[in-house]
Amino acid sequence: MKKLINAPDAVVRDALRGLALAHPGLAVDLENQVVTRAALTPGKVGLVSGGGSGHEPLHAGFVGYGMLDAACPGEIFTSPVPDQLIEATKAADQGAGVLHIVKNYTGDVLNFEMAAELCAEEGIEVASVLVDDDVAVEDSLYTAGRRGTGATLFVEKIAGALAETGAPLAKVAAVAELVGARSRSFGVALTSCTVPAAGKPTFDLPEDQVEVGIGIHGEPGRRRVPLASARELAEVAMDAVHGDLPLEGELLVLVNGMGGTPLIELYGVFAEVAAYVKGKGATITRSLVGNYVTSLDMQGFSVTVCRLDDDLTRLWDAPVSTPGLRWGR
Amino acid sequence: MKKLINAPDAVVRDALRGLALAHPGLAVDLENQVVTRAALTPGKVGLVSGGGSGHEPLHAGFVGYGMLDAACPGEIFTSPVPDQLIEATKAADQGAGVLHIVKNYTGDVLNFEMAAELCAEEGIEVASVLVDDDVAVEDSLYTAGRRGTGATLFVEKIAGALAETGAPLAKVAAVAELVGARSRSFGVALTSCTVPAAGKPTFDLPEDQVEVGIGIHGEPGRRRVPLASARELAEVAMDAVHGDLPLEGELLVLVNGMGGTPLIELYGVFAEVAAYVKGKGATITRSLVGNYVTSLDMQGFSVTVCRLDDDLTRLWDAPVSTPGLRWGR
Repeated sequence: MKKLINAPDAVVRDALRGLALAHPGLAVDLENQVVTRAALTPGKVGLVSGGGSGHEPLHAGFVGYGMLDAACPGEIFTSPVPDQLIEATKAADQGAGVLHIVKNYTGDVLNFEMAAELCAEEGIEVASVLVDDDVAVEDSLYTAGRRGTGATLFVEKIAGALAETGAPLAKVAAVAELVGARSRSFGVALTSCTVPAAGKPTFDLPEDQVEVGIGIHGEPGRRRVPLASARELAEVAMDAVHGDLPLEGELLVLVNGMGGTPLIELYGVFAEVAAYVKGKGATITRSLVGNYVTSLDMQGFSVTVCRLDDDLTRLWDAPVSTPGLRWGR
Repeated sequence: MKKLINAPDAVVRDALRGLALAHPGLAVDLENQVVTRAALTPGKVGLVSGGGSGHEPLHAGFVGYGMLDAACPGEIFTSPVPDQLIEATKAADQGAGVLHIVKNYTGDVLNFEMAAELCAEEGIEVASVLVDDDVAVEDSLYTAGRRGTGATLFVEKIAGALAETGAPLAKVAAVAELVGARSRSFGVALTSCTVPAAGKPTFDLPEDQVEVGIGIHGEPGRRRVPLASARELAEVAMDAVHGDLPLEGELLVLVNGMGGTPLIELYGVFAEVAAYVKGKGATITRSLVGNYVTSLDMQGFSVTVCRLDDDLTRLWDAPVSTPGLRWGR
């Protein structure tokens, strides 16, 4: 295993130290692994997310104006514990309640539920949205139902923008649900990731094969197929998305790298995705190309599509200022 | 070779198609491989850069408000040809002259010089700045003198910000020179990159060794050393930088991924770089952590340091809106 780390058990803590030093707008509790905005906004609905580390910039890199108020990074590919989530929820509660944004993995779901119950007992109003956009498989290694992947970024951005307007918790939760319901994802892996504590690749993938429908922790996808062109692999992904939620109208599209794939390849994939969308008569009106919801050093890509409407487009365009996503501010 | 591509000879063209589709603020001439802002600003000094592809988002990803007016991507790790540079220079000339920002590689230098001469004959005022920030080696595979690497981003951002204020060519060129003179870089590779047309890694690097002082095309560095901790490798890089230009005062620091290294590792490296800088009594007042000046799929990092002053800080903070760097607009 060749990694830029000090020790396998220090990877998350070291990255959080770096995050704190690089971004003075964040407050990082290294002991409890909770990242909050340095300045929270009284009276605003708080947004909290979290999950295993290894998906950076998700989630801690999306804390800041226009997105999250707090994030809880667990250990690599390991759910954050309820104590982290409780601390984050308390910090994010500025009197208007808190929205939990939860990717659909069993551990995350259970721990967020436990934290929400305990916070509710202390008088904090908590709503939850479950993100389960990955159409690749029903049920998986860590999930009952569909896995939550790239749409999490869309939910955090759009619900975060609405929360900044002073909207109440019910409305912020509703738009988060709406974005989730209108979003679908599918991923393809060229290589496995390597978890530092394991020291070796999570799975073996022959040099001439790819895994289509890969999960963001290296969970098995739908099948293995021979390595094909970017065009063919984009088609496989888009067929799966389109087969589940037909592409129509104005679309927000994320072509996301899994961590080890360079940008030059992702732009090539985006060109193929755009051609596919055009072929279905739909229009990409907003897009994002880069490494946003990663799987450590995995090579591969995922594509996430959200059907926009005017309100969602306006909220997507609203200013955002986080380490991982920033514009207009 | 496992890559998300259609064909080795189509990688650059396909990526440019994707870039054009993802960023309507750019005008992409696919035939000549020239990327310009869709809307140029009459009377503003034009900034043009370019170089081999494979370093994305550098350079085409830095075209936009507050940075470049045009970029010329060559084939992978291959200098752009004079015709590209001439077209870009003519487009960028809005009556106030054009600054060429050239990384110090022999092919780039020669082709930019030829283009500058031909444009001068047609009455376009052209100034050039040579970026040669990499302290690793004197002379190298493609270079006489030092190689140009991460400081290119600093030069493009800061000179770009000054150009937006309406400053004349001489002043924009002077600040570009100043940034280059105050910046130093050093890189470390954990793995080789693989050029698509070659189909195999550029060099062999045993599983237990790293190359310190690596170039962004995989040029040999200073030496090979056993794989060490992030702290030790950051120290090797920072010793080289500090030994060449002592760290003092307020610093802008880029911890840059070479394309295949995930963000979680880069933040860990940043924590070590910050500790090193603090130990020398200097202060990091601005920073950037991510994949900005890459070497295809190489795993590794580079660190670039620029000594700031109040003017440079203000120009760094000025709004920028490009695919690869965006804030305040």
